[in-house]
Amino acid sequence: MITVQEAETLILSHRPSSGTELVELDQSNGRTLAQSVIADRDFPPFNRVAMDGIAIEFKDFNNGQRSFPIGGIQAAGSPQLSNNPEQCLEVMTGACLPENTDTVIRYEDLSIENNVASLLIEKIKPGQNIHKQATDRKKGEVILTNDTLIRPAEIGILATVGITRPEVYKLPSVTVISTGDELVDIEQTPLPHQIRKSNVHTLVALLKSLGIEATTLHLTDSKTEIRTTLETVLNNTDVLMLSGAVSKGKFDFLPEILEELGVVKHFHKVQQRPGKPFWFGTTSSCTVFAFPGNPVSTYCCAIRYFKPWLENCLHLNPTSDSARLTEEVKFDKPLTYFLQVKTSIENGQLLAQPVPGKGSGDLANLTRANAFLEIDKETNLAKKDSLHRLWWF
Amino acid sequence: MITVQEAETLILSHRPSSGTELVELDQSNGRTLAQSVIADRDFPPFNRVAMDGIAIEFKDFNNGQRSFPIGGIQAAGSPQLSNNPEQCLEVMTGACLPENTDTVIRYEDLSIENNVASLLIEKIKPGQNIHKQATDRKKGEVILTNDTLIRPAEIGILATVGITRPEVYKLPSVTVISTGDELVDIEQTPLPHQIRKSNVHTLVALLKSLGIEATTLHLTDSKTEIRTTLETVLNNTDVLMLSGAVSKGKFDFLPEILEELGVVKHFHKVQQRPGKPFWFGTTSSCTVFAFPGNPVSTYCCAIRYFKPWLENCLHLNPTSDSARLTEEVKFDKPLTYFLQVKTSIENGQLLAQPVPGKGSGDLANLTRANAFLEIDKETNLAKKDSLHRLWWF
Repeated sequence: MITVQEAETLILSHRPSSGTELVELDQSNGRTLAQSVIADRDFPPFNRVAMDGIAIEFKDFNNGQRSFPIGGIQAAGSPQLSNNPEQCLEVMTGACLPENTDTVIRYEDLSIENNVASLLIEKIKPGQNIHKQATDRKKGEVILTNDTLIRPAEIGILATVGITRPEVYKLPSVTVISTGDELVDIEQTPLPHQIRKSNVHTLVALLKSLGIEATTLHLTDSKTEIRTTLETVLNNTDVLMLSGAVSKGKFDFLPEILEELGVVKHFHKVQQRPGKPFWFGTTSSCTVFAFPGNPVSTYCCAIRYFKPWLENCLHLNPTSDSARLTEEVKFDKPLTYFLQVKTSIENGQLLAQPVPGKGSGDLANLTRANAFLEIDKETNLAKKDSLHRLWWF
Repeated sequence: MITVQEAETLILSHRPSSGTELVELDQSNGRTLAQSVIADRDFPPFNRVAMDGIAIEFKDFNNGQRSFPIGGIQAAGSPQLSNNPEQCLEVMTGACLPENTDTVIRYEDLSIENNVASLLIEKIKPGQNIHKQATDRKKGEVILTNDTLIRPAEIGILATVGITRPEVYKLPSVTVISTGDELVDIEQTPLPHQIRKSNVHTLVALLKSLGIEATTLHLTDSKTEIRTTLETVLNNTDVLMLSGAVSKGKFDFLPEILEELGVVKHFHKVQQRPGKPFWFGTTSSCTVFAFPGNPVSTYCCAIRYFKPWLENCLHLNPTSDSARLTEEVKFDKPLTYFLQVKTSIENGQLLAQPVPGKGSGDLANLTRANAFLEIDKETNLAKKDSLHRLWWF
């Protein structure tokens, strides 16, 4: 049985590429750029008026001039005008600075009468209230690097440089399969010994939040059915995510069948609770995450292993934060313990309040938590205020 | 000019309801429950076997019996079997515990030969390895309250109780309008005095991440066009989000036209940087956020005011965290300063590293940050390690 760290390393070492694709800009939020983005113009592309008011030549002010006849209006979106000597032009935020001007004075600092603007202040700085051309970025400069996560701000940049369809890394296709004869569809009324499917819906929702529309299937505990279905699925999906049938039960056929079908097993079982029977393997085209079927186990493994794996495949750095325990926690098994916690930030401190629940079958408890705290297997008694890695749901 | 706190209070006091709707379970992630959810059965619904192994009666063990003839297999998903006296049944995780048994022993602690299971251990506890009926929740108990944010774990719960279409609060319809004659579409090559639209794309992406598919429009700086378009839009959208034309410019017609069209102004201008000219108003059916047009101003106002307003409308508690400054920041204007920062968590501390950028026109700088730190207007010198409210992008 391997450790959590060994499992993590093995999983992250498998990093298949799904290639890249072009997507519509307005659909690209949350994706990773697979191109670098160059400034097609200076940022800003011209000396940009940054305040509504008038534009003058500073030397006129310096020569003692305090009143300026208004020669016209330089609107945003209009071609650049030219100012006459010892006059001014009204200028609007976003306009290009008129020729023969170098300083902008805000309306707040002016009185305007009979088309003459007079200063109400005695101190101005040459070049003030101008967002100078190329101050932020220069034409030709890389403004977004390859492997950047696209958020709304990056979408603004992509729009500015005219990229209507950015190149991004493709998301893998994922098939989620539930197993177990005790499971019925959610619209059905279960018999006394049955329960409704839940893991598959939890996983589909998690995948959707990561941008992936998963395909779903259900397998009964029949060896023939499992083998036939998996053989097809393995050739048609980038990721196969299974829930259940990986432990020691008489009908836990998955590990055996997956190996028969040529999936290379990288590990089976991890020194952890929940999720000990987790099985992981790959073919040349498919990565197989076979999670234990208890709801908390499935969810914990998906958060702790699948999500960082996906981020790694998408060229994002998988990171985990660390949080401080609000009370002592005892767990004396030689296993890494993924404790359910509710986090909060108090005085800038990220705190983790244990909400342990009643074991890996206690799905309802997950709704009280928002993260798993990873308590190392060497730690039998995690002290109040001790720091541990945190995995947000 | 009002303060940030006054603006926040005014905005949050307007809380129109868009009503509720039923959505498909697999589409409900990120929405807010508008119903409470009752357990339709006990959680778990039967005494559930929690380990693969055998089920026995503890009194037999207590009487010294250590070997048990196997009477059959209780599979998950099969109707409950009954155990014969002094025998055992093999039981699978997820199965219901057979009648006349009360204790489960794992395969790991057994040897099985000639259909007889013999114990390899000397100590067992009555009732072990059973997830007892109703341990987690009782039938009839409220398991999800009204106003719960639906995440993947909640979707698992909704599936378990058979809710295929949860009732959730409707999202408001939003129309995003950009203004300004200097703006051209992203597929166009701008003339020297023009720039491409970016704010509208940033806002659409932000709204999409909040679950809202926005409608977009562009208005040129023509009073007639603005009035005609806004008149129609105001009657057809729950939220009108504008960017630009709210300052002191000659073509900043929006505040005037909005009031002419019967929008009640709640404030114009907030003591803040960026985003001072922010205008906010309402009609009986529409909430109007008119943001200043500089990209950083627009984005900051959307994050600081619109997002909490939306959360409040959706019955979620808008919260902000607080983070610790990593270095001293000077800002001596009598304005609240929204500083762009890059956050990190170190030793459980949420830290905010200033990445101030070059003003409200410096869109590119937003890509270096991931939050705004709100430095109060009374604070001219924010010290290293001081705590401030944080607004994640």
